[in-house]
Amino acid sequence: MSAPSPRPFRCTDRVRWADVDLVGIMRYSAVTRFLDMAEQELLRAAGLPYSFIFEAPELWMPRRHLSIEFLAPARIDDLLHMVIWVSRLGDSSLTLTMDLRHDDGRLVAEVTLVVVCVTADTFSKRSLPRVVREALTPFVCSTDEARQLA
Amino acid sequence: MSAPSPRPFRCTDRVRWADVDLVGIMRYSAVTRFLDMAEQELLRAAGLPYSFIFEAPELWMPRRHLSIEFLAPARIDDLLHMVIWVSRLGDSSLTLTMDLRHDDGRLVAEVTLVVVCVTADTFSKRSLPRVVREALTPFVCSTDEARQLA
Amino acid sequence: MSAPSPRPFRCTDRVRWADVDLVGIMRYSAVTRFLDMAEQELLRAAGLPYSFIFEAPELWMPRRHLSIEFLAPARIDDLLHMVIWVSRLGDSSLTLTMDLRHDDGRLVAEVTLVVVCVTADTFSKRSLPRVVREALTPFVCSTDEARQLA
Amino acid sequence: MSAPSPRPFRCTDRVRWADVDLVGIMRYSAVTRFLDMAEQELLRAAGLPYSFIFEAPELWMPRRHLSIEFLAPARIDDLLHMVIWVSRLGDSSLTLTMDLRHDDGRLVAEVTLVVVCVTADTFSKRSLPRVVREALTPFVCSTDEARQLA
Repeated sequence: MSAPSPRPFRCTDRVRWADVDLVGIMRYSAVTRFLDMAEQELLRAAGLPYSFIFEAPELWMPRRHLSIEFLAPARIDDLLHMVIWVSRLGDSSLTLTMDLRHDDGRLVAEVTLVVVCVTADTFSKRSLPRVVREALTPFVCSTDEARQLA
Repeated sequence: MSAPSPRPFRCTDRVRWADVDLVGIMRYSAVTRFLDMAEQELLRAAGLPYSFIFEAPELWMPRRHLSIEFLAPARIDDLLHMVIWVSRLGDSSLTLTMDLRHDDGRLVAEVTLVVVCVTADTFSKRSLPRVVREALTPFVCSTDEARQLA
Repeated sequence: MSAPSPRPFRCTDRVRWADVDLVGIMRYSAVTRFLDMAEQELLRAAGLPYSFIFEAPELWMPRRHLSIEFLAPARIDDLLHMVIWVSRLGDSSLTLTMDLRHDDGRLVAEVTLVVVCVTADTFSKRSLPRVVREALTPFVCSTDEARQLA
Repeated sequence: MSAPSPRPFRCTDRVRWADVDLVGIMRYSAVTRFLDMAEQELLRAAGLPYSFIFEAPELWMPRRHLSIEFLAPARIDDLLHMVIWVSRLGDSSLTLTMDLRHDDGRLVAEVTLVVVCVTADTFSKRSLPRVVREALTPFVCSTDEARQLA
């Protein structure tokens, strides 16, 4: 039997009161709230709840790089769709990519987040634990694949 | 035909990464994120989306009082239940009360928020618009009623 | 030689972009950002930096109660004055009171925060450490005293 | 008489309680709090307070791109130095670059933010107002210049 095809993970949330600025448009910095939620729910869907990952005393997974392209404004109460996938799964780092879209499909933001795996004591690079690598494998796809599947 | 009985409004969310502090417990100040969400969804359930309320140019509804009792810690990934109701509906102000509970019913926090209705230009008190009052009436109950119904 | 007279602690910050809502007024929930800053700087002035307090493995100081009266709106760029003092120093709990004021003295908000001291393992009440009690003593005053001195 | 030499703008703030995560390290998303503060204070130093810019009804300056390299962890209470400058001043857009550093000079994060100028009604590109361009000119420098001067 073949493994299930890779696929992006999807979830939704609305633009909240504290997300918008004084012209009624979502603050650029509120995108990280959606990214945090998408990452947390992706990990849960992968069978890796935060309580598992972050109780491992010997490793830590800090962020190394974040980039966001802001493509369309979003407003209070708008329902936004997060589509997130693992666009690169390296030995000691991984890249999460997220499309944040309006209900009608228009892109609000494209997000790239690079996470590295380090030892908790000296912050030196180490390999991703095998359990993390295996759990994330079903969500590894290219941006083209992810956008076709989404 | 009689009106439907008053009832509290319910919704849920999980404790997110940015909600917890350095001992892994939800920050006291993260309770307002749950309160904002519960209020926004209550208004939507009442047929009063923010886009309706906050585009009314002539009135504003600032907060006058907030109090929170913190009763039990919550941790990352915990699913929390918001139960919110209108505990007082006055002429120019209203009181929202929210219980924030763990999945097993234990209270995490009890929240009281007093909102007043003012004119947008001079910030002087005015009566709540009739449409707001009518929309919120199904959610008016005493704390005892709300907790029996919840 | 007599001890120095009790006095409130003062610091200032401006209303920031992420503090204001879509009508340009500081969100009610942004008051906790000012409270956190005032508490942190009070502790530093008391000789108790967070790195000292929160590395003590055996105790924790969760919040038990927060109340805020919102008295006047504040807007982006406004310079706000935090005046904070210990209004009660009990055996296992303490109360911080903060006045948040405009540059001209008008009160923006009055804040009360009750903090309790518990054991880190079972969250049961314990006495405040002597070093914390002694460090905070210079900032213990009544609200009347604090407002006369401020 | 020659114009003053271009120079980056500098300010400082400490890592606050709500900035750190459950391992005691500043959350990646807290960098935007420092960026917002640096931008706001840069604009004030340039003679362009937010109250001036954001009361212009006909234009808006949304963010188009954000990127952050995270280079070293920061912890609660750490004093961080923001060094910010205009690395590109185009016709209808500008690029802000910020170095966030520890007290000893180590880079915590390198930040790039592209802001575009649009009409408020249709969100179509327009030229930066002359007053904005002139006010920002003293802070235009290359990254090399900025780092030599900082």
